Amino acid sequence: MTEAPKISVNNLAGAIVDRMVTEADRLRIIVSKGSLGETLIDAGVKAVGGFDVGLLIAEICLGGLGTVTLSPYAATAKWPFHLTVRTADPVIACLASQYAGWALSHEKWFALGSGPGRALALKEPLFKDLGYADKANRATLVVEGDKPPPPEVVEKVSKDTGVPPHHLTFIYAPTRSLAGGLQVVARVLEVALHKAHELKFPLSRIIDGIGTAPLSPPHPDFVQAMGRTNDAIIYGGLTHLFVTGPADEARALAEKLPSKTSRDYGEPFSDIFKKFKGDFYKIDPMLFSPAVAAVTAVETGETFFAGEINESALNASFC
Amino acid sequence: MTEAPKISVNNLAGAIVDRMVTEADRLRIIVSKGSLGETLIDAGVKAVGGFDVGLLIAEICLGGLGTVTLSPYAATAKWPFHLTVRTADPVIACLASQYAGWALSHEKWFALGSGPGRALALKEPLFKDLGYADKANRATLVVEGDKPPPPEVVEKVSKDTGVPPHHLTFIYAPTRSLAGGLQVVARVLEVALHKAHELKFPLSRIIDGIGTAPLSPPHPDFVQAMGRTNDAIIYGGLTHLFVTGPADEARALAEKLPSKTSRDYGEPFSDIFKKFKGDFYKIDPMLFSPAVAAVTAVETGETFFAGEINESALNASFC
Amino acid sequence: MTEAPKISVNNLAGAIVDRMVTEADRLRIIVSKGSLGETLIDAGVKAVGGFDVGLLIAEICLGGLGTVTLSPYAATAKWPFHLTVRTADPVIACLASQYAGWALSHEKWFALGSGPGRALALKEPLFKDLGYADKANRATLVVEGDKPPPPEVVEKVSKDTGVPPHHLTFIYAPTRSLAGGLQVVARVLEVALHKAHELKFPLSRIIDGIGTAPLSPPHPDFVQAMGRTNDAIIYGGLTHLFVTGPADEARALAEKLPSKTSRDYGEPFSDIFKKFKGDFYKIDPMLFSPAVAAVTAVETGETFFAGEINESALNASFC
Repeated sequence: MTEAPKISVNNLAGAIVDRMVTEADRLRIIVSKGSLGETLIDAGVKAVGGFDVGLLIAEICLGGLGTVTLSPYAATAKWPFHLTVRTADPVIACLASQYAGWALSHEKWFALGSGPGRALALKEPLFKDLGYADKANRATLVVEGDKPPPPEVVEKVSKDTGVPPHHLTFIYAPTRSLAGGLQVVARVLEVALHKAHELKFPLSRIIDGIGTAPLSPPHPDFVQAMGRTNDAIIYGGLTHLFVTGPADEARALAEKLPSKTSRDYGEPFSDIFKKFKGDFYKIDPMLFSPAVAAVTAVETGETFFAGEINESALNASFC
Repeated sequence: MTEAPKISVNNLAGAIVDRMVTEADRLRIIVSKGSLGETLIDAGVKAVGGFDVGLLIAEICLGGLGTVTLSPYAATAKWPFHLTVRTADPVIACLASQYAGWALSHEKWFALGSGPGRALALKEPLFKDLGYADKANRATLVVEGDKPPPPEVVEKVSKDTGVPPHHLTFIYAPTRSLAGGLQVVARVLEVALHKAHELKFPLSRIIDGIGTAPLSPPHPDFVQAMGRTNDAIIYGGLTHLFVTGPADEARALAEKLPSKTSRDYGEPFSDIFKKFKGDFYKIDPMLFSPAVAAVTAVETGETFFAGEINESALNASFC
Repeated sequence: MTEAPKISVNNLAGAIVDRMVTEADRLRIIVSKGSLGETLIDAGVKAVGGFDVGLLIAEICLGGLGTVTLSPYAATAKWPFHLTVRTADPVIACLASQYAGWALSHEKWFALGSGPGRALALKEPLFKDLGYADKANRATLVVEGDKPPPPEVVEKVSKDTGVPPHHLTFIYAPTRSLAGGLQVVARVLEVALHKAHELKFPLSRIIDGIGTAPLSPPHPDFVQAMGRTNDAIIYGGLTHLFVTGPADEARALAEKLPSKTSRDYGEPFSDIFKKFKGDFYKIDPMLFSPAVAAVTAVETGETFFAGEINESALNASFC
């Protein structure tokens, strides 16, 4: 890919980052400079943060291509406030930018980097299937965690993205924080696209999508907090995808997409995680998907449905 | 009407058009110039378009006076994503701008033009009752269809609006496209106002209104696609109007407003259309209205309700 | 408090005021200058106003720190359109700015001033517990009522805020108007925080919150109109607060927060008001709270629930 891309997820997201920095006090975040000149944004460690900045972080993760809104939805009675995600381009927004797929580590510091910086570094095999590579003079990454990346990781990101450290921004918030939890639940559409990709459905045939999931309450324990954000999607999430191609392939996608097709479906995610002794790779990857899937085959007009909201599993997790 | 109007629907909508043009790649639309210098925006033919640009087109149709949002609503279980329409001035937004009332044609090309350009041309009898005429140096029209207008139509629009072709914008998207379908469903409030006008309710007494309807899935066939967008409103739409004047007139309006008062209510719109051999003028005009109507008489404080969501008819249409 | 505050609710809200003034015709409001040079905005007396400007007034009341959206919610079947309130900082937005707590009067003119101007004047004991004082060269107040403040009140506000009259803005709309009613219902989160404060829950421990309530229909009679806006919250409102500190205190807060804990719960507010012969101080202050409360103790991850939507009481009030 030698041409400049038509859109730059880093530049689009960068405009939101700039607004966040300007409104730092209003958003209750703390902006500082790291040792290499990188911009660090604490959105939930020493900073209080909150749902408002969480929504902005979610839109940064989506590469400036997505909109995340909060509204009440009666499908989950005790947890009425739902996040709804829509995008101008679901595959680029969710998979080239939002997916937390870039493993970054140095000594004890580890994170799965999310956000548009991934689309400059292109370190993940997934990018081969995406057909998108960004070109930009700035990069932003979002990490779930308590600490900003150490200088060694900043250097690596700089090298891999081709962006000098003083044009890099790292936003960090732990899963237990309000903003950190929100931005994970806002992955409800991404999770559906990622599973579609795992199921070998051609991404170029997913032309639009909408997702919604209940905002999970935070928990101070990392495993519980992570479990709840996953359960918001697995037991309370709903996505509607719009795809080209044959109806039978849309039907097959809908049938396989919901979380209930997974061997591990049913218990709170934190219990599943503990059962496998914290080894993510032993959990059935098919579990990571919304509770309900609708898939419309736009070339035939048919819509296929599978799965259902599981309020009792949701309540078991959230209470 | 010789004074300049207080607000210009073409200028307000034009600001949204300018943003769309700037963000063309992000919105997956194709912007070009026609042979007379007019701006052409393809939002669903060669362009992928999508729901995001559909929302913007809906707001352009509303003359920059309306807001269209997407959120889940449990009233229609299988089709949770609803469009909600509100405006700063419902009658001007919906009837002087959004209503698809300007018949434009040349040889085989035919369209019912929608959007603010109508309020410059004033070709329709409806404008006599509206008491609004725009003055502006630019004009925008939206057409449901596969092709931009031929030069003869562009010339006619230029002449009728008094705007030179290079300041005209035509946005086109077929009903089967994601954006094209969405912008029709976003007419849920307009349809209620238009029927109120048909019922001779004085428009000057409708001071506000809100509407919501489920986003219909697209269908490749024009009749099916059109049928679904109509059914979204007829069987799934809901409006609440706020009117001045006597309570008994508000009550009468509420009782007559819902689609179920129509002789043709009950079947999917595409079946009704076929039954009348595609002759629109044989379909009962009272069918074109939301499923549910609430009307509040603001001078007495009473609210009157009629109609109900018809999920089975909606499912028969959408599935 | 001698330092400048990190955020200025008057400057943030002032940006929205400036936009309202620019878009006065679009929003159907009337902007004029009072005798001392103060800006007067009529949003529902001679002006039609409407829900759109009501949403902006609500965000001005919240000191530019809040977002108020309108979307359908199936929890109250006949009244689907709900306002949802979220903020960047709930305590400052709702209590230092939105709460209608500044009693202003001269001869027969009386109002409880709401909005950011309060945070400059600091006339209410509540500010001792808030730890927030604004500094700004402009001030905005919102009043429920038919008339702008007389010059004597403008002078008093000028003196108490330290802002010259020509930098003061007064927005007024009666409770019976569309905008005036909406901005009261948008107090659903504020009402919960205010009751939490009455219950002696430390405000510094409320780190976030979301609220939703059905938009009440207007009524021409002041007592009925006021009653309906209160009933929207008391019988139809729902809030979720996120607090630090022990779980048992979060549980106690949740149990005490809903309106049904009040002696006076059950009847339409206007009937309660008449029963006490219009003497507000005889009404149980515990009545002023949302129907449903959820409180999450973020340090333990537990969420406590109390109360429920009371559709029959809501219908008795709204119909």
